[in-house]
Amino acid sequence: MSKRVKPRTPRGFGEYLPQDQILFNKMFETIRSTYERFGFTPIETPAVELTEVLLAKGGGETDKQVYSLAKEGEQLSLHFDLTVPLARYVSEHYDKLSFPFRRYQMQKVWRGERSQAGRFREFYQCDIDVIGSENLLVDAEIPSVIYNVFLALGLPDFTIKVNNRKILNGYFEYLGLSEVTKSVLTAIDKLEKQGKCAVFKDLQSLGITESTIEKVLEFTSLKGADNDILAALKDLEVQNKSFKDGVQELSDLCHYISLFGVPETNYEIDLAIARGLDYYTATVYETVLNEYPGIGSVCSGGRYDNLASFYTDKKLPGVGISIGLSRLFFKLREAEIIKPERATPSRVLIATLSSDFLPNALAIAKQLRERGINTEVSFETGKIGKQMKYANKLNIPFVFILGEEEVKSSRISAKRMASGEQVKVTFDEAIEFMDR
Amino acid sequence: MSKRVKPRTPRGFGEYLPQDQILFNKMFETIRSTYERFGFTPIETPAVELTEVLLAKGGGETDKQVYSLAKEGEQLSLHFDLTVPLARYVSEHYDKLSFPFRRYQMQKVWRGERSQAGRFREFYQCDIDVIGSENLLVDAEIPSVIYNVFLALGLPDFTIKVNNRKILNGYFEYLGLSEVTKSVLTAIDKLEKQGKCAVFKDLQSLGITESTIEKVLEFTSLKGADNDILAALKDLEVQNKSFKDGVQELSDLCHYISLFGVPETNYEIDLAIARGLDYYTATVYETVLNEYPGIGSVCSGGRYDNLASFYTDKKLPGVGISIGLSRLFFKLREAEIIKPERATPSRVLIATLSSDFLPNALAIAKQLRERGINTEVSFETGKIGKQMKYANKLNIPFVFILGEEEVKSSRISAKRMASGEQVKVTFDEAIEFMDR
Repeated sequence: MSKRVKPRTPRGFGEYLPQDQILFNKMFETIRSTYERFGFTPIETPAVELTEVLLAKGGGETDKQVYSLAKEGEQLSLHFDLTVPLARYVSEHYDKLSFPFRRYQMQKVWRGERSQAGRFREFYQCDIDVIGSENLLVDAEIPSVIYNVFLALGLPDFTIKVNNRKILNGYFEYLGLSEVTKSVLTAIDKLEKQGKCAVFKDLQSLGITESTIEKVLEFTSLKGADNDILAALKDLEVQNKSFKDGVQELSDLCHYISLFGVPETNYEIDLAIARGLDYYTATVYETVLNEYPGIGSVCSGGRYDNLASFYTDKKLPGVGISIGLSRLFFKLREAEIIKPERATPSRVLIATLSSDFLPNALAIAKQLRERGINTEVSFETGKIGKQMKYANKLNIPFVFILGEEEVKSSRISAKRMASGEQVKVTFDEAIEFMDR
Repeated sequence: MSKRVKPRTPRGFGEYLPQDQILFNKMFETIRSTYERFGFTPIETPAVELTEVLLAKGGGETDKQVYSLAKEGEQLSLHFDLTVPLARYVSEHYDKLSFPFRRYQMQKVWRGERSQAGRFREFYQCDIDVIGSENLLVDAEIPSVIYNVFLALGLPDFTIKVNNRKILNGYFEYLGLSEVTKSVLTAIDKLEKQGKCAVFKDLQSLGITESTIEKVLEFTSLKGADNDILAALKDLEVQNKSFKDGVQELSDLCHYISLFGVPETNYEIDLAIARGLDYYTATVYETVLNEYPGIGSVCSGGRYDNLASFYTDKKLPGVGISIGLSRLFFKLREAEIIKPERATPSRVLIATLSSDFLPNALAIAKQLRERGINTEVSFETGKIGKQMKYANKLNIPFVFILGEEEVKSSRISAKRMASGEQVKVTFDEAIEFMDR
């Protein structure tokens, strides 16, 4: 073969070595099973949508990032999130679904944005949404799902921050900023990343007076235990319906969240949570890992009035959140909060001192697999050094060795690779040895 | 909203309703866990590859089916199988992998082919490959993995058909057909679908004499128990090295396959298995469901001399198979061999006769979830008819009802929806009731 192509992935498109893939899959599976534990039902939509369907809303920043396909015929594009496909799915299959429709969806999405460390052009989103209910209990259940997910992921030190867009909208209206509400929300959204100074300038450029800006910044700096903040909000005596509705909803929400079993240490009100670029209309959520604030929000979402107005005249209110798993994984790995263990699902490698013992090895493998133990049989029969080296390299926890003596006496030499401890035992004893 | 877009998926791109998605996910998970049981390690490559990498081999039918992306910058395309990405992955990460490299990969692939029932433009492939070993034991292990997969899928009545390309190549060489071997293989591949007449004409058009064609057709009609076929092959006394090597390999393979525990009823030699369009060089496999031959091969593959000659000078021999899961699922559903059970992962819905009992419902849900039972709490508190209707529609197997009496006496009214049987019991008794 004379002409070779350099094997490489495109910029912004990553993949993992096996040991990291196993770690990633474990996180994926933990999220999935927690979603199912709460009765969310799986759906999966095609990676590809009709471009006119995907961009029906149009005008957003995401439009420019869409990957379109070059083939002739129908104009197709890769989805850039899972919310637009959900809206299309629910509209298309409306008559065949039951409401409230509780769905989870964990798929790759694609965005042709400038690639940088931790920002990918292909990444996983793990979404849940409940469609077709205006019940505030649904808003309150979401934090309890988030709470259980992050607990199950072994990341117990997090804070779910909640707010209500009605409060922000109402307060800005009260300050006479109705006409620039959207721009103010977008500015507020940058508080965490860019700090007060930058936001101050942004707000100034909107023609807002300094004293009003001070009020906005003071207001959005309110965060903490729900009772304190709710009391402070009531003290403000803002005469605005949206504001009052929002405060009432947020008050009820916090009451319910604790009813759902989320400890007070794991959630708080934060009036700076705006989710400015999104379509939320009431409750909004963000989640931060307390020890790693630099990662930013690892799980965000909120309530919307109407999911699918571009596709159907059915009104579809709902609430949902999304975990950006690829980014979360990248950041956790980078900070060495999680580490890979081994490069294979195998718990046992069966090694043989001669090919004569292969039938015995295969019989033992069959028994192990029937007990749900992932097992690999080495076919490098006889070459014991090579077999042990292979087990070491993949970090397989146990090697079962079969030689003449073992086979004659129906025993197994079982070796715990981490400690080097080795015992010559029966099959049942070998199982016990592994569990010890 | 005045301008609406009709919500629909593009032609050839399918999706499932929740009840079918759950069924599909179950099959997916069964295949995945069986692959892991045999120590195959997961990898996942980007959906998108550099076009020059993807089409390095070039010239195939698949080239025309590739979906390229329209964005400026690097030329990108969606992968059309998982073998080319595997070759790229192994070449790129060669120094970081351990060999033999046993990997599984279960991802969507995309092909812009003419769409028809059961043929999709987006579909799942579930592949395993072992790279870096010329050991025939590896060839023999593959059928035992297939055997365990189809058993676990609840489809025990299947036949794994094996052959060896060296036998076909050698026999055609012996008949003086060396120069048209590839075309003959392609023709042979159509035997199952188009019958002998069509293949006869194909071979005639290659300029092959009638008597030789008769020999080819007679030869490739040999199939059945390994000993009979192997004896028949030896009787032919074909003086050709490739032929003899192939017969010896096939003979050893069959011996090993039975050693790996695959019953004789589940595999056979079939000399018509050619896998003509592929890059196989020795062992080839196809798998048919005996009761549904019309589905065609549900799991195919084989051994190749060198996986990645387009990317690396490292020689990478290997063997692998692929299950076309989307097509298999479609066919099994169409034939009603599999049927969906329910439209939610929830085993229990907790219904309440008043919102006062919601705290009790949440406490019970927590306990159920801690025991690994997927549980949904209805927030339609009080509206018992609505709650039961919802459970019925989703086919949730159990409803736990909490009214005043239940809460006062720390009991649950547990209803088995299929039979209508209802008991008023403690939490532990309710768990027992469910397991009964």
